[in-house]
Amino acid sequence: MDERLIESAMRRALELSVRGPARGVNPRVGCVVLSAAGDVVAEGWHRGAGTPHAEVDALSKLPAGSAEGATAVVTLEPCNHVGRTGPCSEALIAAGIARVVYAVDDPGEHSQGGAARLREAGVDVTAGVLRAEVEGFLADWLFTARHRRPFVTLKWASSLDGRTAAADGTSQWITGPAARARVHEQRRASDAILVGTGTALADDPSLTARGADGVLLDPQPIPVLLGLRDVPADAAVWRHPRPPIVLKTRSLADALCELQQRGIRSLYVEAGATLASAFVTAGLVDEFAIYLAPTLIGGPRAALDDLGVGSIDEQRRLELIRVERLGDDLLITARPTGGAAGGHHETPPPGPRSSDRPAGQADGT
Amino acid sequence: MDERLIESAMRRALELSVRGPARGVNPRVGCVVLSAAGDVVAEGWHRGAGTPHAEVDALSKLPAGSAEGATAVVTLEPCNHVGRTGPCSEALIAAGIARVVYAVDDPGEHSQGGAARLREAGVDVTAGVLRAEVEGFLADWLFTARHRRPFVTLKWASSLDGRTAAADGTSQWITGPAARARVHEQRRASDAILVGTGTALADDPSLTARGADGVLLDPQPIPVLLGLRDVPADAAVWRHPRPPIVLKTRSLADALCELQQRGIRSLYVEAGATLASAFVTAGLVDEFAIYLAPTLIGGPRAALDDLGVGSIDEQRRLELIRVERLGDDLLITARPTGGAAGGHHETPPPGPRSSDRPAGQADGT
Repeated sequence: MDERLIESAMRRALELSVRGPARGVNPRVGCVVLSAAGDVVAEGWHRGAGTPHAEVDALSKLPAGSAEGATAVVTLEPCNHVGRTGPCSEALIAAGIARVVYAVDDPGEHSQGGAARLREAGVDVTAGVLRAEVEGFLADWLFTARHRRPFVTLKWASSLDGRTAAADGTSQWITGPAARARVHEQRRASDAILVGTGTALADDPSLTARGADGVLLDPQPIPVLLGLRDVPADAAVWRHPRPPIVLKTRSLADALCELQQRGIRSLYVEAGATLASAFVTAGLVDEFAIYLAPTLIGGPRAALDDLGVGSIDEQRRLELIRVERLGDDLLITARPTGGAAGGHHETPPPGPRSSDRPAGQADGT
Repeated sequence: MDERLIESAMRRALELSVRGPARGVNPRVGCVVLSAAGDVVAEGWHRGAGTPHAEVDALSKLPAGSAEGATAVVTLEPCNHVGRTGPCSEALIAAGIARVVYAVDDPGEHSQGGAARLREAGVDVTAGVLRAEVEGFLADWLFTARHRRPFVTLKWASSLDGRTAAADGTSQWITGPAARARVHEQRRASDAILVGTGTALADDPSLTARGADGVLLDPQPIPVLLGLRDVPADAAVWRHPRPPIVLKTRSLADALCELQQRGIRSLYVEAGATLASAFVTAGLVDEFAIYLAPTLIGGPRAALDDLGVGSIDEQRRLELIRVERLGDDLLITARPTGGAAGGHHETPPPGPRSSDRPAGQADGT
């Protein structure tokens, strides 16, 4: 078959995948089935956890036996594990598919291995068609699948001398309206927003994303409370439109793993100095959103406390991504040098919601 | 006389003033003497402390008695005090000058009052011709004369979380080569550079302005040591090409007054947290030069310590003047809101060496 037909089918599969839900545990995947002659005979896409995967969705549209000898073109390597649906590798084999072409390998701990299984069963497998485009589109999901945790943005707002509050703890307001509006935009763009229980008790934050007039934005991030202390029943967070996730642990790794398993891909951390420093020290911050206001405060309340930097050689170097002026304030976006989590990802880690559609593709929905 | 001739003479006087020395106790002043018919009959300018003022310099070029009925056009109000030279007001009266036109009032504590003395003697006095232009040119001197202290720039270099060193005190390097080169440029452009004796003892800084290759730039700032502790004879600062000024006082106001009297117009402060905080708390900083490196350090060594900000309403708001990217670092230039020293100046305070020539004028020298 002309490989141009394959690539064209992959573009269509990518287009179909956009119809799926942008958040959640599962990636957005599209599938096109081509006859031996190269005609599109079925299309499918994944509609979210608990529903059929794209391959199964496409196969379901064909009369029994009619996929015999056909080519399945799918944006992600077919899965190989029994989740709420059966493994796609087996479904493709059972349907008699002769060739599978996919864009991106599945890095999922339990789901990977589909290509090997298919080859074992005598199916011709081609990987990497339109890989870069699909990688870009799936960046946030791929990041979580590869790192087994959400993409973590640590945010703070401080004076130019690095203080987040006056000596008595008051901090309203250090930054101005434009910076605060951006914070709410970043909350809205995140799957979840995390604070420690200490901050929840001290500041009673609502953890909602709000517009200038205080109206709730859509969608809302899921509020996450991390820590061992109880937050009283009358705290603002319990009135959040989405039920809070409570993580009674001191282990950041456990907490992040739990959040990934709940489908949280992007996490916005607005922690106090102790928890923020723990995230930094553990190397679990992928992006810093540092709001700097043109003010000086001094005193005991710094954005970060101890990072274990005994000597200057141990300082934690960041890469400056962007500096923006927001009203009178600055937003500095930075990432750890060497990339997130030790640079194990092939593509730059995504910002939250960085990829609502494939590059150069109109959203077909 | 046609006032256009007066303005033209003032432009010439400003041009002449540029020939004087840009640093020191005295301002650069120029003077043009016009005959009753409006012809330029003499020109003068001031060549620095201890030499004749511009008016006397101009009059000295005229035969005795020939200034009778003439007009003296001078950039600064003629002085009225007996310094190393006699008062210009008396010299003008004695020469028989009929009219004095000047641009800017003399704010000097001891020298002001010349216009009143001249009027008292029956001389016709006009003030304010080309005032804005001359104010701009004399901005740094006028600032010191009005505030009885130099223009103070407080500089520090910190991580994004506001730390200037690791826990053990090491700080080489937080910023990169481009930022460090800019610091040396700012040192070079300052009349003097000040550190506390504590910093001198801890870091043994040379307080020189150096190029990328370590070569000494020209001119060099005068090094100033502030504090009660003795700095040992083998300290680097004693090898500075200019003799250090030692101010054995804890009073910042006294120290700054002393520096002004020594002709220091611009002071670059590179103090540790305690002294820097004292400058901020006393409201004695006119400009902040904050170098921010994309790094995190945490721990005990912040750029500023306590500023007496108990509640957020007491934070010290600044105005962001400029944000520059220097290599991987940022330079944030900011000023206190309301202007320096309580906003008593009419024009914005100058940066160091901001005015080497009058706006729109070629340097005639």
